[in-house]
Amino acid sequence: MPTVSEKYLKKVDQLDLPPRLLLGPGPSNAHPRVLAALAMPPIGHLDPKYLEIMEEVKDLLRYTWQTSNEFTISASGTGSAAMEATLANTVEPGDVVLIGINGYFGHRLVDMASRYGADVRTFSTDWGKAFTLEEITAAVAEHEPKVLGLVHAETSTGARQPLEGVSEVCQKHGSMLLIDTVTSLSGVPLFLDEWGVDMAYSGTQKALACPPGLGPLTLGPRALEALNNRKTPVKNWYLDMSMISKYWGTGKRVYHHTAPVNMNYALREALMLVVEEGLENRWQRHQDVANLFWEGLADMGLKCYVDKEIRLPTLTTVCIPDGVDGAAVAKQLMADYNIEIAGGLGDLAGKVWRVGLMGHNARAENVMLLLAALKKVLFS
Amino acid sequence: MPTVSEKYLKKVDQLDLPPRLLLGPGPSNAHPRVLAALAMPPIGHLDPKYLEIMEEVKDLLRYTWQTSNEFTISASGTGSAAMEATLANTVEPGDVVLIGINGYFGHRLVDMASRYGADVRTFSTDWGKAFTLEEITAAVAEHEPKVLGLVHAETSTGARQPLEGVSEVCQKHGSMLLIDTVTSLSGVPLFLDEWGVDMAYSGTQKALACPPGLGPLTLGPRALEALNNRKTPVKNWYLDMSMISKYWGTGKRVYHHTAPVNMNYALREALMLVVEEGLENRWQRHQDVANLFWEGLADMGLKCYVDKEIRLPTLTTVCIPDGVDGAAVAKQLMADYNIEIAGGLGDLAGKVWRVGLMGHNARAENVMLLLAALKKVLFS
Repeated sequence: MPTVSEKYLKKVDQLDLPPRLLLGPGPSNAHPRVLAALAMPPIGHLDPKYLEIMEEVKDLLRYTWQTSNEFTISASGTGSAAMEATLANTVEPGDVVLIGINGYFGHRLVDMASRYGADVRTFSTDWGKAFTLEEITAAVAEHEPKVLGLVHAETSTGARQPLEGVSEVCQKHGSMLLIDTVTSLSGVPLFLDEWGVDMAYSGTQKALACPPGLGPLTLGPRALEALNNRKTPVKNWYLDMSMISKYWGTGKRVYHHTAPVNMNYALREALMLVVEEGLENRWQRHQDVANLFWEGLADMGLKCYVDKEIRLPTLTTVCIPDGVDGAAVAKQLMADYNIEIAGGLGDLAGKVWRVGLMGHNARAENVMLLLAALKKVLFS
Repeated sequence: MPTVSEKYLKKVDQLDLPPRLLLGPGPSNAHPRVLAALAMPPIGHLDPKYLEIMEEVKDLLRYTWQTSNEFTISASGTGSAAMEATLANTVEPGDVVLIGINGYFGHRLVDMASRYGADVRTFSTDWGKAFTLEEITAAVAEHEPKVLGLVHAETSTGARQPLEGVSEVCQKHGSMLLIDTVTSLSGVPLFLDEWGVDMAYSGTQKALACPPGLGPLTLGPRALEALNNRKTPVKNWYLDMSMISKYWGTGKRVYHHTAPVNMNYALREALMLVVEEGLENRWQRHQDVANLFWEGLADMGLKCYVDKEIRLPTLTTVCIPDGVDGAAVAKQLMADYNIEIAGGLGDLAGKVWRVGLMGHNARAENVMLLLAALKKVLFS
């Protein structure tokens, strides 16, 4: 037998983390109760108690999304894994998938759909805008897609896509409605069933105040029908919901992969906090805190990039004033005050800061601190 | 706007977990220091401190695997995600992939490879056996595969696949060597570079004593070359290592998905514990504890399924005596003593119990308790 070589060894010290206030696009700071749940001892992924926890996660997600979809689970990856799962499971080569692009994550949906052989069509509007129902109606009528993908809350722009009336258009043309709720779930009004949404996904690290690592995912009856009637196998083993549904289902549990047990403890606790607060109260808290922030920005002479009617309370894009080095300001906020905010992505790179006030961080004191720090860095 | 419906609401109580001793095939109990690290506050996935942590995880994994592979990371899913990543990134439609099947996870490799259009060939031996170098040589010479996949530690059987000499055969035929180290990493001697392994993956929830949720993954130079020279894009967005390498690399970090930050704190701590103990000491501890268990089984008249020469110390398959209801025994161990062990999978269903003594659980006191409990349930 060879001997162990120390040449690979590097010295590593005790983990020592800076006390960051995470006011970027995510992750946001986790709620202390969520971190406590995360650190509870793992139990087996087929333990009767764990199966109970899975049922609770499903129930709690249904409440938070306002859906009765039986298939409502956490995918064992981050939000992007859940995002990919929606397309991987319902799209077969040649299927028309129509994506509305008004930011970074629309492009990501296009990339993902194309990897599964979809005939991808797109329609676009400016970053920071939302589509009108007329624009959506025209695009769906033109392409008659199997799936229409829209981003309810564009994390790259801070714009909210209104969804009223969209499902009626989709149903007229036999299309399924897929929406990205990564930056809206539990922070912005969301009514999946009322809005006729067929598929949605989210992440844990934004308004849910849970660390990143799981991807909440819900598939409605029409999405499950598409999955069950596939002519070809799902071209992705890890995210194959035809197999995973046998583990998350209520019948005999069939092992697929070892569940990320502790992350599901954390998600369960995060969702319990949503229930305890009440959805409407939580949405209102996010709105109130955002209003406070927007007023403070206006007082300082700073502008928001997105129109107020469709501006997300969870994620604000702040216009970087002319002559200001946005990246330097963000760097200084972190260096001097341990506050994380982010710059723009794609079309908005260099034009905006992205500020998240989400979950446990959606509190007045954080707004006060950020405004004061921003003022100091910008004007003194 | 619709109003929030309480019909989705179910009452959920404070999380209250049973005090399980996890002596099945995984997860094993996490080390308390790992759980403490897991519960530290998240920081941003592009925070300079987090980038430092990523570098440390890479270094620590290299030591634990004994490899100098630059691309040595944790995939943001469980071990199965890392498993799929190896094939998804290096295999293109029509490529010949040869899998040695001597248990459940060989079949999983076949399933995964076929989803990426591989021309999958197999060779087999009985569950619980390992392949001889002659058998491997003959199969590689016959099929001349792009990738040869072998399971170093078959979690379904408890057999260890010797790997000495295999890479020489692979190199002669231009094949890459891929191995599954889910149940061996840090529990069983492993020398990736000495053995000429091109790709390997593992899980966190076994001998590393970390909760499930990340998939350690390493790609050697030939695997990276295959990835870089692809004619077709990787047919999997979430596991596309050509993109992920820009986030885990040492150049400018390009955002791909929000990293599971807390799970990486935990993995880092788990790997630090490996370094503190020393690899050889840790392997020896697993072997000593397994020997103790095997002696105790023999004293009780119970037999191990796998020959001692290739029996994994981390995972023992114990033959269920004639006339004994194996599932009922496992159930009683859990009901009476909060001890989890598992039954057999596939060919070994109903024939064996699977007992894991891994990571923090590889301690003499756990052996003593399990033997006493098993004796009580079986013989009194």
